Amino acid sequence: MPIKPDAAIEITALQWVPPGAQGLVKDLRVRWALEEAGLDYRVRLLGGERPAGYAKEQPFNQVPCLRDETVQIFESGAILQYIAGKSEALLPRDAQGKYTAIQWTYAAVSSLEPFVQFRALLDVIFADQEWAEPSKPTFERFAQLRLQQLSDRLGDKQWLEGDRFTVGDLMMVTVLRIADRSGQLANHPTLAAYVKRGESRPAFEQALSDQLAAYREHEPEGVAA
Amino acid sequence: MPIKPDAAIEITALQWVPPGAQGLVKDLRVRWALEEAGLDYRVRLLGGERPAGYAKEQPFNQVPCLRDETVQIFESGAILQYIAGKSEALLPRDAQGKYTAIQWTYAAVSSLEPFVQFRALLDVIFADQEWAEPSKPTFERFAQLRLQQLSDRLGDKQWLEGDRFTVGDLMMVTVLRIADRSGQLANHPTLAAYVKRGESRPAFEQALSDQLAAYREHEPEGVAA
Repeated sequence: MPIKPDAAIEITALQWVPPGAQGLVKDLRVRWALEEAGLDYRVRLLGGERPAGYAKEQPFNQVPCLRDETVQIFESGAILQYIAGKSEALLPRDAQGKYTAIQWTYAAVSSLEPFVQFRALLDVIFADQEWAEPSKPTFERFAQLRLQQLSDRLGDKQWLEGDRFTVGDLMMVTVLRIADRSGQLANHPTLAAYVKRGESRPAFEQALSDQLAAYREHEPEGVAA
Repeated sequence: MPIKPDAAIEITALQWVPPGAQGLVKDLRVRWALEEAGLDYRVRLLGGERPAGYAKEQPFNQVPCLRDETVQIFESGAILQYIAGKSEALLPRDAQGKYTAIQWTYAAVSSLEPFVQFRALLDVIFADQEWAEPSKPTFERFAQLRLQQLSDRLGDKQWLEGDRFTVGDLMMVTVLRIADRSGQLANHPTLAAYVKRGESRPAFEQALSDQLAAYREHEPEGVAA
């Protein structure tokens, strides 16, 4: 378990989020990548109110950020690439393999996540809005189209580009977990199995366990787990 | 003008789109980057119906794709990085500068574009849906929050990281142009001026001119420009 208080790499994470968001907050992506790469890291946990000056590190007041002796950056996609640049475990070194893996990270956050995320939010934070129910068929159609296109592309391959797991799969699996938790993979057994393959990697299991451990430790009184 | 029929780099673009989408289709990002880098390219124009087999190149049936002797990739973010890797004009070579620029490309497509794009669509393709009008305040609030946070971060700097234009600015300006065209920058003079700075770069002007020239050439009969 590479969480070490004196590690050179520091990431930010949230000390607690409600159960519906646990396991989906984006520091999980970075923890997972660091585990795959075998890199030690330490965690700076933030409360619901961000510390003064955090907007200088992250203009949208979100997690994760990463800093070490070399860089200070935010956006999970950029952080994943920085970590992947340190380890061939996540990013092939040949140009086609490298840019294909990078391509899948953008596809995950740009061509899948917005549709899947908005559809999921209609059942959660937007659920009591009068427009939530009537808008569902439209958002459902968009999200399902993209998921079907991705499923067709994945086919019977183990990972997006075949036998080799890359940072592109890591990002895509974390996005598909949003879809999975909100029931959007019910008709996509190919994608559901792909998510399960990702989740059964030891590096993922360790990353998730560490994220959840922080939440348990900082659970507000009176909140049932 | 680096469009050359025998260039090594080929990109895909659409031969025509309705006036509301002209100047916003994502091949513009790639054309702009190629102009900034001074790289020749050729264009494969696609009709509204994609050619058989295009899904093998682009699983979501979109443009742009890029191919040359080395790679075949899609997702404008990945393509921009590939082009930027060929030219220091777009991507600093030091680690902090490089990953900060990459960070802004992800911020543009992941932390800004989904909010700005969904808000814009409420006035266009969703306009006749019963839920469009009542959902506007919510989508407006999300989009305006992110735009304000970006505006605060940009401040009085010329580009996102100061005096040096990078691929991060290129991506961000193309996303903000969606906001600008749909009136979302009305209360953000800082961002509106930033977009204007981007649009006045000769490389942008050439890229836009070339995108629009294809549309003029393939305008369907009976459509007023």
